[in-house]
Amino acid sequence: MPADRTDTAPGAPTLSDVAARADVSTATVSRALNVPGQVSEATRARVMQAVRDLGYAPNFGARALAAKRTNTFGAVIPTMDNAIFARGLQAFQDRLREDGVTLLVASSSYKPEQEEEQIRTLITRGAEALLLIGHDRTEAAYALLDRQRIPYLVTWAWEAQAPRPGVGFDNRAAMQALAAEVIALGHRHLGLITADPAGNDRARARIEGVRAAMAAAGRDKDALRIEETPYAIAGGAAAFARLMAVRPRPTAVLCGNDVLAAGALTQARADGIAVPGDVSITGFDDIELAAILTPALTTVHVPHREMGRRAAEVLLDMRAGAAAPPGLRLDVGVAWRDSLGPPPRRAFDGSPGA
Amino acid sequence: MPADRTDTAPGAPTLSDVAARADVSTATVSRALNVPGQVSEATRARVMQAVRDLGYAPNFGARALAAKRTNTFGAVIPTMDNAIFARGLQAFQDRLREDGVTLLVASSSYKPEQEEEQIRTLITRGAEALLLIGHDRTEAAYALLDRQRIPYLVTWAWEAQAPRPGVGFDNRAAMQALAAEVIALGHRHLGLITADPAGNDRARARIEGVRAAMAAAGRDKDALRIEETPYAIAGGAAAFARLMAVRPRPTAVLCGNDVLAAGALTQARADGIAVPGDVSITGFDDIELAAILTPALTTVHVPHREMGRRAAEVLLDMRAGAAAPPGLRLDVGVAWRDSLGPPPRRAFDGSPGA
Repeated sequence: MPADRTDTAPGAPTLSDVAARADVSTATVSRALNVPGQVSEATRARVMQAVRDLGYAPNFGARALAAKRTNTFGAVIPTMDNAIFARGLQAFQDRLREDGVTLLVASSSYKPEQEEEQIRTLITRGAEALLLIGHDRTEAAYALLDRQRIPYLVTWAWEAQAPRPGVGFDNRAAMQALAAEVIALGHRHLGLITADPAGNDRARARIEGVRAAMAAAGRDKDALRIEETPYAIAGGAAAFARLMAVRPRPTAVLCGNDVLAAGALTQARADGIAVPGDVSITGFDDIELAAILTPALTTVHVPHREMGRRAAEVLLDMRAGAAAPPGLRLDVGVAWRDSLGPPPRRAFDGSPGA
Repeated sequence: MPADRTDTAPGAPTLSDVAARADVSTATVSRALNVPGQVSEATRARVMQAVRDLGYAPNFGARALAAKRTNTFGAVIPTMDNAIFARGLQAFQDRLREDGVTLLVASSSYKPEQEEEQIRTLITRGAEALLLIGHDRTEAAYALLDRQRIPYLVTWAWEAQAPRPGVGFDNRAAMQALAAEVIALGHRHLGLITADPAGNDRARARIEGVRAAMAAAGRDKDALRIEETPYAIAGGAAAFARLMAVRPRPTAVLCGNDVLAAGALTQARADGIAVPGDVSITGFDDIELAAILTPALTTVHVPHREMGRRAAEVLLDMRAGAAAPPGLRLDVGVAWRDSLGPPPRRAFDGSPGA
């Protein structure tokens, strides 16, 4: 048994495997990982490619002894801003603490390469299990998770056909239910403000949900105007202004999350557009902000605390050897407040409203 | 040299030191740390006390070789909720990434014991430097930092006499400046909504700032009514309601942060109290929320991004061997918006206003 085998879980790729694949010595792999200045750029690139291909993560022997627990779990979330993930994460952490587990969190800025690197860092630093957001990530990240045999859960998302263990909710169905309510109120021209759906399965599912509701109501898909922007209040405001320049003007603007909706509401107020009198605005997530906006935001209520708590329980079980359970779907529903109403009897541009 | 010396930085406490202090064998220390079920509760308690007394942190040899960088920094923040620390932390992380460093974050729920444990976990997991919030923490936490010789910085606070390296701002002076403006507008009866100042030097300094402004203006300290509540929108709302029941009623309510102020504004609206017509409300932090509240919040603007970026640069220098610099104080100032105005000409209860 090569010496480095003692540093890794049974079956996990070893330093020797990396060396063989990169066609260098194990000493060179070690230098490339630990003192990169001592190897050429080309050698380092070859070694890192092998590390990625094999899903190798050095771990300083921490997980070598099954009994030698680090009692550290990790989470990688897209952003710490805007409290989108904060409440669920707090519940996750609180539940882990009951079992003496400390949570370390990294934030990927919605960048898949950054998430992959952070997953590797958390495993290397001894994380025994990982909470991740959504299904979209690099193939290398999934390969790393599988080969290192780290228990992990996908949260904030649920898909019937998803091949990965998860605790989440059906983003598509939730957005479809809200959009169906909007359409039922008589809105014919809809706007949608969304984050870039590339690499973000939650955003993609929410867009699909709006389209599905329109199709179910027999509406022309051209009656939906979509604006993309980063998740930020300022982005939501600017996107709302662009939608208000469209003719015929949308009488309802659905937003991919509450932060974007907060921006839209702010822009409407600045432009003297009454909500919901002139235009209805909806959100998604039901973060604490939603209820204190003026008007209070109609949105999709996500059970953040329950999701966090149950994810913790499942991951603790998985660490103890339980198999990954089938995906657990939590119920979500519309939180009715003041920002959604019927369309105006006459649209702004003088054309008849719905 | 005992075998475990190779696992620790020169001068740092070793497993043998812990064993000697707890009067047990090194094997027992190892079991107490790694397989606690195999030692008695009393033995584990004695070992953990020795671990705390000595500031011991096992580290799996990661820092044994100075050249063997983990390229991982840590941060412990009081909460991930409400985005109070998110923007500064994002800037911190962005700057670290430029140097190839990954950031892992733990959140202590404003609990000193939890923070101490998280500091230990981050060091154990190979963090090369730590960002911390404020000066208040357990003696054991400071002892651990000093003995493990981990570069760290105190942020979100600055005190002239502080013995710890930091990049922050003067919470007391900033709150005093805002309170002086409130008093100059003619407000005589003030309310203050604050978090529990125990274990929270930022909250304490802000309270002192209000008192200092009142003293400077020759006001009786009894003209300040203080309500404590956790940092949450609901807490701010309930505290505001309690202040409105005081006679004579405060005509201005200063809040320890923007989240509490958001709660106060929400409660004022619910109770039909005009802001600032009947009561002025101010915040602290200038998080993104402040500008989109109705009315927009007058608050203390904190340069979160600059603080995060500079903290990263200082910590990177310290990792490279630079001495801890003297405390760096950043400028803060009042962000004037709509929620602060002169007192009403007549107070609610019929008594003459200021």
